[in-house]
Amino acid sequence: MSALVGVIMGSKSDWSTLSHTAEMLDKLSIPYEVQVVSAHRTPDLLFQYAEQAEERGIQVIIAGAGGAAHLPGMCAAKTHLPVLGVPVQSAVLSGVDSLLSIVQMPAGIPVATLAIGKAGAVNAALLAASILGHQHPQFHERLKAFRAEQTESVLENPDPREA
Amino acid sequence: MSALVGVIMGSKSDWSTLSHTAEMLDKLSIPYEVQVVSAHRTPDLLFQYAEQAEERGIQVIIAGAGGAAHLPGMCAAKTHLPVLGVPVQSAVLSGVDSLLSIVQMPAGIPVATLAIGKAGAVNAALLAASILGHQHPQFHERLKAFRAEQTESVLENPDPREA
Amino acid sequence: MSALVGVIMGSKSDWSTLSHTAEMLDKLSIPYEVQVVSAHRTPDLLFQYAEQAEERGIQVIIAGAGGAAHLPGMCAAKTHLPVLGVPVQSAVLSGVDSLLSIVQMPAGIPVATLAIGKAGAVNAALLAASILGHQHPQFHERLKAFRAEQTESVLENPDPREA
Amino acid sequence: MSALVGVIMGSKSDWSTLSHTAEMLDKLSIPYEVQVVSAHRTPDLLFQYAEQAEERGIQVIIAGAGGAAHLPGMCAAKTHLPVLGVPVQSAVLSGVDSLLSIVQMPAGIPVATLAIGKAGAVNAALLAASILGHQHPQFHERLKAFRAEQTESVLENPDPREA
Amino acid sequence: MSALVGVIMGSKSDWSTLSHTAEMLDKLSIPYEVQVVSAHRTPDLLFQYAEQAEERGIQVIIAGAGGAAHLPGMCAAKTHLPVLGVPVQSAVLSGVDSLLSIVQMPAGIPVATLAIGKAGAVNAALLAASILGHQHPQFHERLKAFRAEQTESVLENPDPREA
Amino acid sequence: MSALVGVIMGSKSDWSTLSHTAEMLDKLSIPYEVQVVSAHRTPDLLFQYAEQAEERGIQVIIAGAGGAAHLPGMCAAKTHLPVLGVPVQSAVLSGVDSLLSIVQMPAGIPVATLAIGKAGAVNAALLAASILGHQHPQFHERLKAFRAEQTESVLENPDPREA
Amino acid sequence: MSALVGVIMGSKSDWSTLSHTAEMLDKLSIPYEVQVVSAHRTPDLLFQYAEQAEERGIQVIIAGAGGAAHLPGMCAAKTHLPVLGVPVQSAVLSGVDSLLSIVQMPAGIPVATLAIGKAGAVNAALLAASILGHQHPQFHERLKAFRAEQTESVLENPDPREA
Amino acid sequence: MSALVGVIMGSKSDWSTLSHTAEMLDKLSIPYEVQVVSAHRTPDLLFQYAEQAEERGIQVIIAGAGGAAHLPGMCAAKTHLPVLGVPVQSAVLSGVDSLLSIVQMPAGIPVATLAIGKAGAVNAALLAASILGHQHPQFHERLKAFRAEQTESVLENPDPREA
Repeated sequence: MSALVGVIMGSKSDWSTLSHTAEMLDKLSIPYEVQVVSAHRTPDLLFQYAEQAEERGIQVIIAGAGGAAHLPGMCAAKTHLPVLGVPVQSAVLSGVDSLLSIVQMPAGIPVATLAIGKAGAVNAALLAASILGHQHPQFHERLKAFRAEQTESVLENPDPREA
Repeated sequence: MSALVGVIMGSKSDWSTLSHTAEMLDKLSIPYEVQVVSAHRTPDLLFQYAEQAEERGIQVIIAGAGGAAHLPGMCAAKTHLPVLGVPVQSAVLSGVDSLLSIVQMPAGIPVATLAIGKAGAVNAALLAASILGHQHPQFHERLKAFRAEQTESVLENPDPREA
Repeated sequence: MSALVGVIMGSKSDWSTLSHTAEMLDKLSIPYEVQVVSAHRTPDLLFQYAEQAEERGIQVIIAGAGGAAHLPGMCAAKTHLPVLGVPVQSAVLSGVDSLLSIVQMPAGIPVATLAIGKAGAVNAALLAASILGHQHPQFHERLKAFRAEQTESVLENPDPREA
Repeated sequence: MSALVGVIMGSKSDWSTLSHTAEMLDKLSIPYEVQVVSAHRTPDLLFQYAEQAEERGIQVIIAGAGGAAHLPGMCAAKTHLPVLGVPVQSAVLSGVDSLLSIVQMPAGIPVATLAIGKAGAVNAALLAASILGHQHPQFHERLKAFRAEQTESVLENPDPREA
Repeated sequence: MSALVGVIMGSKSDWSTLSHTAEMLDKLSIPYEVQVVSAHRTPDLLFQYAEQAEERGIQVIIAGAGGAAHLPGMCAAKTHLPVLGVPVQSAVLSGVDSLLSIVQMPAGIPVATLAIGKAGAVNAALLAASILGHQHPQFHERLKAFRAEQTESVLENPDPREA
Repeated sequence: MSALVGVIMGSKSDWSTLSHTAEMLDKLSIPYEVQVVSAHRTPDLLFQYAEQAEERGIQVIIAGAGGAAHLPGMCAAKTHLPVLGVPVQSAVLSGVDSLLSIVQMPAGIPVATLAIGKAGAVNAALLAASILGHQHPQFHERLKAFRAEQTESVLENPDPREA
Repeated sequence: MSALVGVIMGSKSDWSTLSHTAEMLDKLSIPYEVQVVSAHRTPDLLFQYAEQAEERGIQVIIAGAGGAAHLPGMCAAKTHLPVLGVPVQSAVLSGVDSLLSIVQMPAGIPVATLAIGKAGAVNAALLAASILGHQHPQFHERLKAFRAEQTESVLENPDPREA
Repeated sequence: MSALVGVIMGSKSDWSTLSHTAEMLDKLSIPYEVQVVSAHRTPDLLFQYAEQAEERGIQVIIAGAGGAAHLPGMCAAKTHLPVLGVPVQSAVLSGVDSLLSIVQMPAGIPVATLAIGKAGAVNAALLAASILGHQHPQFHERLKAFRAEQTESVLENPDPREA
């Protein structure tokens, strides 16, 4: 099965965050591709990527970026696919700049924004599963299984004093 | 066609924001339902709503709330459907509290967060169209048409000095 | 004597903060129980816990959580007992998200919010003692003794240059 | 029945916020007193008030203040009663200064902090009812009735489009 | 003389801010053009504008935008001309989101950022004059004259009590 | 008696704030002078003012400014007199920018910073009285009288429900 | 010569900040005393200290505290001496809470606030010298000498590339 | 060729940031000079530097400073050259204070502000190249070459999983 999810990020240094997206997609057996696409250093590549993603079979784009994070929003401006934005924790402002640059999109072009950093990266994969689940029942099932397991894991270890 | 999108909000006062979601869903001819469901005042209703939404045919839930905005996240905790969160602009802190309460979900339970206020409300509808578009080509077409029209409207009126 | 205070937290990682609550409750000899209850991963358990706490003899609930911290507020939505919220210092935003998610509750459902992190965890125990003191004079006495001791400790060591 | 709750505030201008506390206490038929006590302009009165409150029969103190809001914390430093702090929305910084000045108490002296402004003022009264309820079953009953009514009011008017 | 400065903005509503740029350029007799170019609604136009500006004789681009303000940064990604960014005061977050989205550009692609709102709009024109002044002495002279006049205006009216 | 306090401000629009300083100085009968001195538009005047203030008999300088508020700090860099800084509430960021620009001076050059806006303006005058009081007992006496009166005014009107 | 400056702080842990005040006072040969006085743990001591400082010969009080920093403001409420506030960098919020709790005093009771942390601690001593300089010319002279030396040190080492 | 860019900074400790400006200017072979000029400790030097820069052949000034960062703005007040401001990441507030002190200049005196820290330092050099490029085609060419190389470097290494 060819990639259904396209995971892009502004620079190689964002991989330490977005690798958590990849891991979770692996766990859910959702086929994906990963690529560095920089809004500022490779704007033409970004437009080409966003324009062609749908015809290449991509159904959801996950875009992670930090600082003045324009990647998710500009990607959304060039596609009709759902774009999920992961604010990478920036060195100086802890990702507040990344979050606001991604979430505060004007009416007309949405970006589905997740939490700053690792939690957001994991959740982008889960949200993708939830979106894809309508058409691909196997992902819906795997998402349910993952969620059930996650609940079990808390219920079985209720005592915080035990390691 | 029965409702595909469930639009819920924490109180009647949130309607001035979420009505923009409804308007856009109307424009895209996506069937939806709207209801006040308060996480804090009607927690049991919230759980019931979230648990039964999928079997009732709902495919996307849009939840708007302000302040300590727990509605989107708690809804997401009780369903496997995609939950889209709209931070309502709060009276005191301009929606910064709403935004952080919605977007900063822990790894495991995602909420797709939109911009604070009206822009986010409009975009939640557009994001829903994009998500539903995979299975319902007519919404994909309408989304494309809306987006093309929106682009045209800028291109045809490039001079900011004209009203 | 069975537990009068229920100390719950969103995940095991919150124990490094909430253990300070437990220590102070120990120091004041107030019987308590501790448990991991996740609003997002175990929402049903949370509702069950909150609903049954009063009849099980719990008189005060202390709930600690970080990020989009919904545990204290949702617990308060399901009980008439006083709920004390401890904002755990989050990795990314230093607990500002935790604080706003807990304190900015809408009119109708209060959460008694303490300081972010360790100070808040310690103070939740002291506030519980103060609340329980009306009915249980021994806790009132122990609180007074602790406070007197604390004052003495400053008065006896007024010189900051001495270790 | 003499006053069980003492409602104090830093200046007359805070009454537009704290009057919501009084209204809710009235609704719950909890006897209370109200007084302006300024931490900065009448520090001796504050100490006298806090020191004598317990022996005068006060069981809970609600203190509202704005800006560099020292009233709740200094009151807590001089009593063993539970002190509930209401951050008044300040003219310049929307109450962020009030909130941080009240909630960030050091370990040793807790202040139970509520939301900024009107919501916090209402909730201080409800929290007082919850605290007093252990000893005064009638307040517990009235709190339960108020909460049930509040829930009903949402359930009976689920359509946000109706006024 | 054909336009040396290109003034673009994300939407017509930004004109109430950017008109101050135009006014100051008029005062300095610097030829300019103005146009609405939306990064999100007309991304292709933005790329075309930025790519062709230099060959059309534009020497400085002034770009104003609000919220998730991607216009200045994406423009800078597609030209080697100096791009001056004016953060428009956003409805919800007072322009903090606009400022961070514009100023926090990654190493490699600079945007010369001015103050939020009207002050920044005026100053973008003055900065353009200063940049153009190296090659066009007449703008340098007019800038000096404006600055001298501005200083005189303060020196001649030192008493704040006089209107 | 010639002016002991020099009150300067960055622009005429700051007078609506600094006039409260003048009023309080009048009330305390402290001789003062007022003048617009702009750090950015009249830098030479600022340096001249700061350099000559001491020899002209000024003993305390009160400087009010908003936004990137450089007036108090640059004034302090050019005099050995105590400089009191009043952050004027800025149009866009409520004076947070003014406050940080004034208070965050590096080690070596202090500015005694007061609250944002009117409260800070009033307090600058009171702080000046307190500083001058060491050498001029009459100001010390007037300050004491003002403070006593202020306390009386609270004590005589303890009921917030009365106008 | 007995102490002219009283340096107080909320806890021993603040000494790592306030020791910089002491060092600078030593360098300027200004006699001072240091003491831990906690607003919350030893409120009576604080009132006694503030009330008696003037008659004991203290002319300036420097008060450092962190978090909900009530020490400087409450001290100012009980004395007519100038009170200089040093916001200690708090563990969780970097001293933003300390700063706002100290600087945002209401009209009527000023606190002269310095920068957060070490810079503020050093500057409190320099400001004290400047205040005391009116009556004690030797401190004025030492302040001038220190400032001249500080300027020289920059002028003599203009090259940042040399260690 | 004598220096075209003057790089100044408030203290030697800022060199760890501004050295990135120097490195990039070296890479682009733009002649520059570097010097410590402190707004607060050497105000006269600052005025002299700013006043004489233009006649000495400097065409762009890059000024870096942290905290209450007055250097760029005061420099701009004394020259008609373009002044580029680099907010240095401050120890306590991560450079938020530096950023606001630099960017929020009043109408009349612009400072072209870059990102906080290293990214801003690098970009100041690139912006200088872009400004100088109008008159000095060789810098324009080098800037284009650097930008092309930067784009190539992303395109050639699209896989984030490879080191």
